[in-house]
Amino acid sequence: MRRYSVKEIAKLEKRHFRDEEGVFVIEGKKVFGEAVQAKAEITQVFVTEKFAREQRDFLAQIDPRMLTVISEHNFQRLASTETPSGLLAVVKKTTVTFDEILKNNRVVVFENLRDPGNLGTMIRTADWFGIRAIIISKEGTDIYNDKVIRATMGSLFHVEVYVAEDLGADLQKLKTAGFPLIVTRPEVESTLPQSLPEKMAIIIGNESLGTSPESDVLADYTYAIPRHGQAESLNAAVSFGIVLYELSR
Amino acid sequence: MRRYSVKEIAKLEKRHFRDEEGVFVIEGKKVFGEAVQAKAEITQVFVTEKFAREQRDFLAQIDPRMLTVISEHNFQRLASTETPSGLLAVVKKTTVTFDEILKNNRVVVFENLRDPGNLGTMIRTADWFGIRAIIISKEGTDIYNDKVIRATMGSLFHVEVYVAEDLGADLQKLKTAGFPLIVTRPEVESTLPQSLPEKMAIIIGNESLGTSPESDVLADYTYAIPRHGQAESLNAAVSFGIVLYELSR
Repeated sequence: MRRYSVKEIAKLEKRHFRDEEGVFVIEGKKVFGEAVQAKAEITQVFVTEKFAREQRDFLAQIDPRMLTVISEHNFQRLASTETPSGLLAVVKKTTVTFDEILKNNRVVVFENLRDPGNLGTMIRTADWFGIRAIIISKEGTDIYNDKVIRATMGSLFHVEVYVAEDLGADLQKLKTAGFPLIVTRPEVESTLPQSLPEKMAIIIGNESLGTSPESDVLADYTYAIPRHGQAESLNAAVSFGIVLYELSR
Repeated sequence: MRRYSVKEIAKLEKRHFRDEEGVFVIEGKKVFGEAVQAKAEITQVFVTEKFAREQRDFLAQIDPRMLTVISEHNFQRLASTETPSGLLAVVKKTTVTFDEILKNNRVVVFENLRDPGNLGTMIRTADWFGIRAIIISKEGTDIYNDKVIRATMGSLFHVEVYVAEDLGADLQKLKTAGFPLIVTRPEVESTLPQSLPEKMAIIIGNESLGTSPESDVLADYTYAIPRHGQAESLNAAVSFGIVLYELSR
């Protein structure tokens, strides 16, 4: 397994470098704990001198060959938050195959999402509602972006992610495999049946554009959250939460 | 009505200056339109030279005595977004009295919220569900913060805001006035009755701490969103959306 220098770790902020290397970076003890529990493959751990002094018991659990102690100054250069946690780790990406996605009854499809905070919040929300299978279109925000990871609050390690190179083709395959496609649209009538199908795929579109016309054409059902006031729309993550709540009742 | 210089407008980024002056700043044509429609008192409008050239019809509607055209450079210094809209306006705060809040059947209480994006998203969500009456504790994020206003997407002008100096006393007054208090807590059983009371006040607590012990003691009902997965909690705005959805069914 390749070991990265501090300089190379900084390069992992760029998606294309993460893609090439098949790894990503996590920060903080809490997310690290989630990664360990999920048996994610952690290949390197960087901690600050202060962290090393104060967290000896914690560090005793880590294979010393994986561990590098760096100065606060160097750590600050790598950390993505203003109040860095003092711990940073390199984790190997684990992607699942499309067939593994199909083993779940509920699938969430993120189509071309832009806002990392929104995407992370939605992964956390999917996890809350017990949804593990996530398909994400290659064009949208990378799920291994540091802001996404932070917003998932550890939930990234509770879900299985499949990155779709050709989302249209994959949606068609979902339909063929018996997953009706559900889209959320504010301006239409809901067509969801009273008794929900056992298998379902919920497509979440771009924050301002919504689902693409291609996905809308493929959709089997639409769900519209009733509006009682004057707001033109709901925040994407809020509306996603409401849809999952409705579908899990 | 006082006219501000460009330098003074920049000072309105600070809450204490907004509090003293009783005004706040909005950006962009869309929010401006919402302010006009809501009959908000707009006291000054600043536009860039480019905006003035390109939006003559739009500017024709604005009282020229209120209008100041400034350079792109000066505007950039005032604008809170990286892609400034070219229009900025000073709006007089309108606060309502506690008695006016009581005229509504549903009241939302924001207790000590920290994240401006979350607060703005929640105001937008309240507006979607037809809730107009908002009480906000003085200690939390200011509702007239530019990030809050942006996240409300215009909904700030669809709601009535009362700022509570002593939230505990006001919650007690709500109860006396016949509004049962509802709090959301993840780790308890829901005690919401089958048929909902006509009047209700929903208390939303701080993002990481939740509602305060003082508010929890006063609460009449709790609502817990059922969890099916492993996430420890939901994002505050997402859980707020789900609660309003549940209460509006």
